[in-house]
Amino acid sequence: MTLTGKDLISTKDLTREDYEYIFEITKRIEGRNAQGLTHVLPDRIIALLFFEPSTRTRLSFSTAVKRLGGETIGFSGEEATSIMKGENLADTIRVVEQYADAIVIRHPLDGSAKYAAQVANIPVINAGSGAEEHPTQALLDLYTILREKGTIDELTIGLIGDLRYSRTVHSLLYALTNFDVTVYLISPPLLKLGESIKGHLHEKGVHFKEFDNLADCISELDVLYVTRIQRERFVHPEEYLKVKDSYKINMKTLSNAKENLIVMHPLPRVGEISHEVDNTSHAVYFKQVRYGLYVRMAILSMIFGREDRITG
Amino acid sequence: MTLTGKDLISTKDLTREDYEYIFEITKRIEGRNAQGLTHVLPDRIIALLFFEPSTRTRLSFSTAVKRLGGETIGFSGEEATSIMKGENLADTIRVVEQYADAIVIRHPLDGSAKYAAQVANIPVINAGSGAEEHPTQALLDLYTILREKGTIDELTIGLIGDLRYSRTVHSLLYALTNFDVTVYLISPPLLKLGESIKGHLHEKGVHFKEFDNLADCISELDVLYVTRIQRERFVHPEEYLKVKDSYKINMKTLSNAKENLIVMHPLPRVGEISHEVDNTSHAVYFKQVRYGLYVRMAILSMIFGREDRITG
Amino acid sequence: MTLTGKDLISTKDLTREDYEYIFEITKRIEGRNAQGLTHVLPDRIIALLFFEPSTRTRLSFSTAVKRLGGETIGFSGEEATSIMKGENLADTIRVVEQYADAIVIRHPLDGSAKYAAQVANIPVINAGSGAEEHPTQALLDLYTILREKGTIDELTIGLIGDLRYSRTVHSLLYALTNFDVTVYLISPPLLKLGESIKGHLHEKGVHFKEFDNLADCISELDVLYVTRIQRERFVHPEEYLKVKDSYKINMKTLSNAKENLIVMHPLPRVGEISHEVDNTSHAVYFKQVRYGLYVRMAILSMIFGREDRITG
Repeated sequence: MTLTGKDLISTKDLTREDYEYIFEITKRIEGRNAQGLTHVLPDRIIALLFFEPSTRTRLSFSTAVKRLGGETIGFSGEEATSIMKGENLADTIRVVEQYADAIVIRHPLDGSAKYAAQVANIPVINAGSGAEEHPTQALLDLYTILREKGTIDELTIGLIGDLRYSRTVHSLLYALTNFDVTVYLISPPLLKLGESIKGHLHEKGVHFKEFDNLADCISELDVLYVTRIQRERFVHPEEYLKVKDSYKINMKTLSNAKENLIVMHPLPRVGEISHEVDNTSHAVYFKQVRYGLYVRMAILSMIFGREDRITG
Repeated sequence: MTLTGKDLISTKDLTREDYEYIFEITKRIEGRNAQGLTHVLPDRIIALLFFEPSTRTRLSFSTAVKRLGGETIGFSGEEATSIMKGENLADTIRVVEQYADAIVIRHPLDGSAKYAAQVANIPVINAGSGAEEHPTQALLDLYTILREKGTIDELTIGLIGDLRYSRTVHSLLYALTNFDVTVYLISPPLLKLGESIKGHLHEKGVHFKEFDNLADCISELDVLYVTRIQRERFVHPEEYLKVKDSYKINMKTLSNAKENLIVMHPLPRVGEISHEVDNTSHAVYFKQVRYGLYVRMAILSMIFGREDRITG
Repeated sequence: MTLTGKDLISTKDLTREDYEYIFEITKRIEGRNAQGLTHVLPDRIIALLFFEPSTRTRLSFSTAVKRLGGETIGFSGEEATSIMKGENLADTIRVVEQYADAIVIRHPLDGSAKYAAQVANIPVINAGSGAEEHPTQALLDLYTILREKGTIDELTIGLIGDLRYSRTVHSLLYALTNFDVTVYLISPPLLKLGESIKGHLHEKGVHFKEFDNLADCISELDVLYVTRIQRERFVHPEEYLKVKDSYKINMKTLSNAKENLIVMHPLPRVGEISHEVDNTSHAVYFKQVRYGLYVRMAILSMIFGREDRITG
């Protein structure tokens, strides 16, 4: 298996073998604490094109490139906004590929990363496209589960919050179809997982069950994956406030949880997880951030066929 | 001939010998595909001061510096705007020259780059000053012509669009006075080339002719250089729309063109060239972007007297 | 004495011995003109978190890191603003410390840098916190005095302008308690130094005296440190204008000054020092900028315990 010269657009495109190989490389990087690896990409320039704000993901990729000895160019913020207004995406990609050796793209539209990959002659990594996919987040989520639970198979994994619009959830679910897991989908009716993804899960033989309330299933979970519920999804503010409070994770919520339940979150959080949870052994969301660095370093070294430069 | 320690403010300051030497260094860089050159400026920091937005030019210089092993510092966007409000340009330059080894400046005012060069004790490269000059763009335009046509001399070069306010056009025309070319200037009356530049062309013995319509001269052209016509130049919107459509380059416009006509554009385009042209052999505007990287790498290595580190 | 692994939050935390050691390392860097030192931090990533705009300080740290061979990640401007709205500071710090090896933070709130240092497991350098402290500015100010006057002890140092809200002044005064100096505090009544800092100076045995007018003490000064008076501090515009003019430094103001008086300013200036002063030997404010680079390089190498890599 090789990612050399390939794009990473959707977790649908990866096989179980791919995941295992990516995690093997990631583990080598973790073993070195991400240090001493500046010989991997010393001559590579990676363009970070953030058409949508995302400080965390941008800093994560930026660090990953630099820990591997590479350099970054790119844009974000108001500059990105004015580019989107000024020319079409294809032209931007055709210009940037004259400069960079690979492109990392975050874009508010579904299909944007895929389109960029079709236009570009260099590898494109999807760093979040619309409400659709965020494959490197899914990879780091899986790696977190693997490292914190020792396995992904045979776990019961609960996903809670906005399952309809969260690209993080979608990419993670596609990825989980490669593993032998039971998935619990916990959300208010308005934010239930879309039918097409449910169809995909059925087809792939994933066992899943839907819940309105976390209390009904918390005791069975090995992993609880929390996502943010955004006010803008609700027509009535009072409906949002009700949902928001009933989906908040705190010590009381966790009182019936397994002792070794891990609580994950893609961050940033704005109240979905109470700070009192931070100091418990359940909380792994800041560890996720660290694992994310390792995973992105693995992906970047692999698309350039340089993973052999990372010795264990 | 040497650029060591010099500023690059205007193409007026360069001789034919200068151009030929710059293109020789550029060709060496092209021969190496811009790779394996991080030993050229490994200890140099270049300040990119973009007081006016220009993602393409900024990314081009940023890539050029990094492919040569150097580092960048700088600002753009709202940060640049607030600096312009907060202190005078001389103070900004005097501060930045304490940090960097050279300055690349883009500024909305005519004369800004020249003034910065007078204040600074380190080399200053003009990356676009007002409506006045954009010398590195002219250099990459000339290099594109040289590479795509095999020569600059004896060509008939058409420039179309906003000839009055385009700094790209002005710098290119100054540069072309060093070559034996015929220049066709195609623009609506409102946007004709200014008298002072026309006087300069006369003085230097450049053969040029003015046209209102491309159709009247397209069959004679070896090169067609397209620039954007901006809505803001017109008092009446309908006048803009009329001009905009009649200056748009598409397959129909090109039906009478020479088979080996090349169509150039400094980018970004917003409709001046139809996308159907992109896949023809006429289109060289994305190649221009690549050549621009090589040219800027040449200029940067030369102002530090390091071009001998670039072996062919 | 060692700064290895330590935070730099306040000049109150440093002893005379600390200052002398920092200046010794700084002098070594100055002796090398900041060149040839990319072997000091080749594997370190420093996060520059600018929650408040400060181009000069950001470029200074950015240059310092890169001259030492390190890399930067970070944010500023509107991106910083949206982060502040989106999550609490502790979460931001906990994320960033997964990526970087040290954090440089500028933040509009008093106590912010100290709080960041408590949260973080990596060294934190305060690059300006509220109206409170700006320790690296104080270090570069002291180093400037040392280099330009040959000593800090036995000097009479005047500070003029907004002494109440200037963090630069506060950090400098805390630092000066370690030296045998006389301090003249020159400001309009509204902007006099706060009582708590005056108490601190008393306690430490610093000789200081307050003045309303510079004319009353200019002839006695060895150093004149000028700060900006901000319009926003005044209720009545006419009061601001009166103060602004009477605190402006020009050739007339300096006519009674000692010949070897040095005039300092943290920059940017907006009229506090007339440009006619720039070309006199009194003016050292652009030299301060250069010394600032050396000092920050010293601090950065020291928090990583790498100062031994800087040979004299």
